[in-house]
Amino acid sequence: MEETFVPFRGIKNDLKGRLLCYKQDWSGGLRAGIRILAPTTYIFFASAIPVISFGEQLERNTDGTITAVQTLASTALCGVIHSVVGGQPLLILGVAEPTVLMYTFMFDFVKDRKDLGPKLFLAWTGWVCVWTALLLFLLAVLGACSIINRFTRVAGELFGLLIAMLFMQQAIRGVVEEFGIPKRENIKDTAFLPSWRFGNGMFALVLSFGLLLTALRSRKARSWRYGTGWLRGFVADYGVPLMVVVWTAVSYIPVNDVPRGIPRRLFSPNPWSPGAYSNWTVIKDMLNVPLLYIIGAFIPATMIAVLYYFDHSVASQLAQQKEFNLKKPSSYHYDLLLLGFLVILCGLIGIPPSNGVIPQSPMHTKSLATLKHQLLRNKLVSTARDSMRKNASLSQLYQNMKDAYNEMQTPLVYQTPPTLGLKELKDSTVQRASSSGYMDAPIDEAVFEVDKDIDDLLPVEVKEQRLSNLLQALMVGSCVAAMPLLKKIPTSVLWGYFAFMAIESLPGNQFWERILLLFTAPSRRYKVLEEYHATFVETVPFKTITFFTLFQTFYLLLCFGITWIPIAGLLFPLLIMLLVPVRQYLLPKFFKAVHLQDLDAAEYEEAPAITYNLSFEDQEGRVSNIDSGEVLDEIMTRSRGEIIKHVSSPKVTSSTQSPREQMKSVYSPRFSEMAKSPRLSEIITEISPRSPRPSKLGRGSSST
Amino acid sequence: MEETFVPFRGIKNDLKGRLLCYKQDWSGGLRAGIRILAPTTYIFFASAIPVISFGEQLERNTDGTITAVQTLASTALCGVIHSVVGGQPLLILGVAEPTVLMYTFMFDFVKDRKDLGPKLFLAWTGWVCVWTALLLFLLAVLGACSIINRFTRVAGELFGLLIAMLFMQQAIRGVVEEFGIPKRENIKDTAFLPSWRFGNGMFALVLSFGLLLTALRSRKARSWRYGTGWLRGFVADYGVPLMVVVWTAVSYIPVNDVPRGIPRRLFSPNPWSPGAYSNWTVIKDMLNVPLLYIIGAFIPATMIAVLYYFDHSVASQLAQQKEFNLKKPSSYHYDLLLLGFLVILCGLIGIPPSNGVIPQSPMHTKSLATLKHQLLRNKLVSTARDSMRKNASLSQLYQNMKDAYNEMQTPLVYQTPPTLGLKELKDSTVQRASSSGYMDAPIDEAVFEVDKDIDDLLPVEVKEQRLSNLLQALMVGSCVAAMPLLKKIPTSVLWGYFAFMAIESLPGNQFWERILLLFTAPSRRYKVLEEYHATFVETVPFKTITFFTLFQTFYLLLCFGITWIPIAGLLFPLLIMLLVPVRQYLLPKFFKAVHLQDLDAAEYEEAPAITYNLSFEDQEGRVSNIDSGEVLDEIMTRSRGEIIKHVSSPKVTSSTQSPREQMKSVYSPRFSEMAKSPRLSEIITEISPRSPRPSKLGRGSSST
Repeated sequence: MEETFVPFRGIKNDLKGRLLCYKQDWSGGLRAGIRILAPTTYIFFASAIPVISFGEQLERNTDGTITAVQTLASTALCGVIHSVVGGQPLLILGVAEPTVLMYTFMFDFVKDRKDLGPKLFLAWTGWVCVWTALLLFLLAVLGACSIINRFTRVAGELFGLLIAMLFMQQAIRGVVEEFGIPKRENIKDTAFLPSWRFGNGMFALVLSFGLLLTALRSRKARSWRYGTGWLRGFVADYGVPLMVVVWTAVSYIPVNDVPRGIPRRLFSPNPWSPGAYSNWTVIKDMLNVPLLYIIGAFIPATMIAVLYYFDHSVASQLAQQKEFNLKKPSSYHYDLLLLGFLVILCGLIGIPPSNGVIPQSPMHTKSLATLKHQLLRNKLVSTARDSMRKNASLSQLYQNMKDAYNEMQTPLVYQTPPTLGLKELKDSTVQRASSSGYMDAPIDEAVFEVDKDIDDLLPVEVKEQRLSNLLQALMVGSCVAAMPLLKKIPTSVLWGYFAFMAIESLPGNQFWERILLLFTAPSRRYKVLEEYHATFVETVPFKTITFFTLFQTFYLLLCFGITWIPIAGLLFPLLIMLLVPVRQYLLPKFFKAVHLQDLDAAEYEEAPAITYNLSFEDQEGRVSNIDSGEVLDEIMTRSRGEIIKHVSSPKVTSSTQSPREQMKSVYSPRFSEMAKSPRLSEIITEISPRSPRPSKLGRGSSST
Repeated sequence: MEETFVPFRGIKNDLKGRLLCYKQDWSGGLRAGIRILAPTTYIFFASAIPVISFGEQLERNTDGTITAVQTLASTALCGVIHSVVGGQPLLILGVAEPTVLMYTFMFDFVKDRKDLGPKLFLAWTGWVCVWTALLLFLLAVLGACSIINRFTRVAGELFGLLIAMLFMQQAIRGVVEEFGIPKRENIKDTAFLPSWRFGNGMFALVLSFGLLLTALRSRKARSWRYGTGWLRGFVADYGVPLMVVVWTAVSYIPVNDVPRGIPRRLFSPNPWSPGAYSNWTVIKDMLNVPLLYIIGAFIPATMIAVLYYFDHSVASQLAQQKEFNLKKPSSYHYDLLLLGFLVILCGLIGIPPSNGVIPQSPMHTKSLATLKHQLLRNKLVSTARDSMRKNASLSQLYQNMKDAYNEMQTPLVYQTPPTLGLKELKDSTVQRASSSGYMDAPIDEAVFEVDKDIDDLLPVEVKEQRLSNLLQALMVGSCVAAMPLLKKIPTSVLWGYFAFMAIESLPGNQFWERILLLFTAPSRRYKVLEEYHATFVETVPFKTITFFTLFQTFYLLLCFGITWIPIAGLLFPLLIMLLVPVRQYLLPKFFKAVHLQDLDAAEYEEAPAITYNLSFEDQEGRVSNIDSGEVLDEIMTRSRGEIIKHVSSPKVTSSTQSPREQMKSVYSPRFSEMAKSPRLSEIITEISPRSPRPSKLGRGSSST
């Protein structure tokens, strides 16, 4: 994305690019048939449950002015509009935690002001939304998204970890409140006697931890030993909503022995009762807000605009990472413009606005990658079996598969990177064929294992279309109608879900992993190196990693602490924005440029990520029977950057390559046998990048 | 152990053998110094907590006639006597679940009989103990222990799994009862209102699951990434009692908000209050028992004698497995005789008798193996460093270490297997030395890594002495005095501990692992083969494994079901004994002999277990920095038999060796590079043992 600040040019380019793909967005989606439902329902659950939870959180923090009905309506409305007229259809919109935080701050502000009071809350937030939208228009027109590249990993991951901390805070607060008396209930109710409150609190502990632990376990179902592949895939994809249902059912077990209020369940007004909402009066009320406050609404609007600018663009960025090999162009400026319209719309109806959400957006893209992989695979498998039946040689088989692959590609009418073809046949396959003299003779299953080898030939691709986004938004909308059913969910189950979301977001966050590295004893660090890890673990001295991580942690705690300040806490987005100049001007004074590059590469600096088919090969090139979902699970939890798994041997060699080039050569399939790497423990302690290995370790020479 | 049924000969041989070692048993223990406390406290906790839990269980089942005080006293008394005058000091005695079960049956019998009633319960059990002791004397004198060899894995593991099921049953029953009103309490107490009972039950759920999950996690602390080696070892060894303390503390958190009875805690009379016990009147009461019942006491006595004979001998056998390389002789006959005396003693005092316990006995031996390993290692490390400082060559270094090792061996005045010397230097070490021309030149850390390579040279050995056993028994005795402190433990924590004991005993039990294998999808079976697994997984057809396992499961459920029958349930030991002839005569009619051998080898049939230093080498011979405790954890969970970890490659070869020989050759260190194994998935489906691999898989030939 070129950096341009000429007014309207960014938006114009985006529109031009996406209009070309528009028709194919829909036809491609319809052509996928019934299979489109898998990613759709996956994202539906991943969107709906947090939105319901945020609704519950808002219900408590705004004394019931905003409930789950409003958050669901906002998610559905914005989702539908964005999927139909938005730029990047892979981007999922929804009500996010920062919005909840902002609305909480604003409510605390409003309820003590005599001129406003809770009655005019929605009216005032309406004005805030108007200002926010104007600012977003300004940012979009001026092409502010061009500098999104300057948001390095430091800012993005700190933000991610901050969100995780806020989630966890809400989960803990929620469970603790289960022991107390809720604010707006009848104190004399049986369910609020000290004895029943104690039981309720304990029950809440059981339900929330139950959900948390079973949900975390179910995510790893693909690597389980037990159960058929179908069952494991089902549990891994739908396990979490399934667990919500299961634990809701569990909460009904003691229903005969306990008073009606135990356990406490989701509160929400019946959406079908007339007069349930004041939403339709918001526009009228907006004129009742005193002028001073209309102008004062500019301050929170600035913060929200900054937040949305950041969140929306980074979510979009994460949904379009290089690993996904997307073909259609990005559309940051136009999407920000659209967001402005959506904010005004939501503000005028009195519902909290939605913006691009993390992690649902990259999850969406990933599920569409799996879908595309399955579609391609089926096609190629049938082609391969066909060819083998006709006694094709290895080269003929390969050509047939290539042709089948190209058939499935969409015509390139827009400018894109050159087509990714099928990958080269693996060396081991070729060797097997030639060693048994089968290069031009008919081949059989022993040379080319249809089920396994085809996976290695397929590059990562994504089924880019608009249908899944539209469908999931409609499904979220239908939740509003299903509210009587949703009201059965115990609040403790939702608090467990908050904790689950917090924990789920940690793996892949390099900041978090650096924190863990600090706690790893030096003698155990080899364990890190044995798994997938990022480059910096090996190329940056440990002391530097420590200082960098401590700095980031301190900054994180600062941001977190600011959210505790009652009203001034609104200003926390400023701190996050501050990270950009800090990273560009302040940090290079304390850290070497090359270390910063490894620890926190900006997108334009980063080396291309390792292609994912490597994970199918274990260390000796042994192909194991892993299904693609399992592999994608492993890789796609990483958001960006280089992923390295060592092909290591204890032999020690000297090398004149830089570590980065060395790593790259290690992972190029042709050279995997010749990969040598210095003894791991020594690297950790005494490396200096881009210099030859100390000769003490030298034994012979390496050649690549 | 030779099979002999000549009266008194077995006992005489045992006494002769052990008297020779007696002095060294004590001197060796004292020479270990303060380090002996580590295994001692480890076994103390492993003994005391179950014994306290059994006391609680008995307290409920016998209406308070027997409580934790009696079980602790029995464990301590029998433990002290056995450690001082017993035969095999590695055998740990304690009150075991079968005893608890038996006493429960006997109490149910007694309380409904007008002539007896609960008052004469202890008197009647006194008579039962007398008969039991006479039977045990008879068995010991006639050398019945000689046939302990005929107890194959089938019987032992079924028994182990039965115990696990009974533990789990008690845990579940205990937690469910927390929701109800306990039998002998004041119903009008506040703590028994429905509301508080609900809270108590929920609290019990939280505490018991909390203990269960944290205790299971702490056992794996040695493989954690975080924390220093010392901390991890500490958590792994003492984590479980630590968690009991932690969760007891947690149970005090709401103490201000809840009535006094919540959560329910251990019940036990104050041992210091006079007249607390009727134990001293038992002998007097025994004369009050009607003659009919005195004679009738013979029936339960038979069952108990059978149980004790089985349990005591198998526990002793498990504590003396081949992997441990014990030097001192066994002593089954004499120990059974001693058990008879202990049973009479306990019966006359009115406490339940103790017998050899699983798993504490093998745990004891294992902890002493770790101790010995540490002692030897320290000595060798200092020797090695010394030699390297003096610039010794590799061969000189090795010689020095050999000398140091021999110094530490105890003089061989009794007949034992030939001394295990230090193992050969690893091939990789020798290669490293010779490839750099360092064979006779001074070596440095790069060739011979003192910390890692020494572990590979040390064979498994055990510090055989009596001191640890005596000390742990005395510590258990001191628990009786500490009863006011123990009464603070909530009963739910104990139920969690029962569940923990059940789950902990599963890994290593081949029966359990076969059950798991039945649930493993065929496409996932390679996962089993990648970890440590027993031979049969590869050599026995899957159908046969299924049938065998189903048969064993059916038998297990039969035994378990019998324990539910109120009084006739007493007869369940008969069923277990029945397994011996079933295995010897019935099973060979349905299963091929060679399959039975792999699935269920009798001790004399089994191949020697793989020596444990293999685990230090990963698949490419890479030495990882694993501490010995972690390895022993891994191996010693297996009770017997061959342990195999594949050094596999996807290449396929034909082989004319039998699978068993092939496996052995795979694991001999010299041939590890030449190991070839057929493609794993094919083995699972189409193997027939002792036949050449089907030629379809053949590619070249193998040579070994």
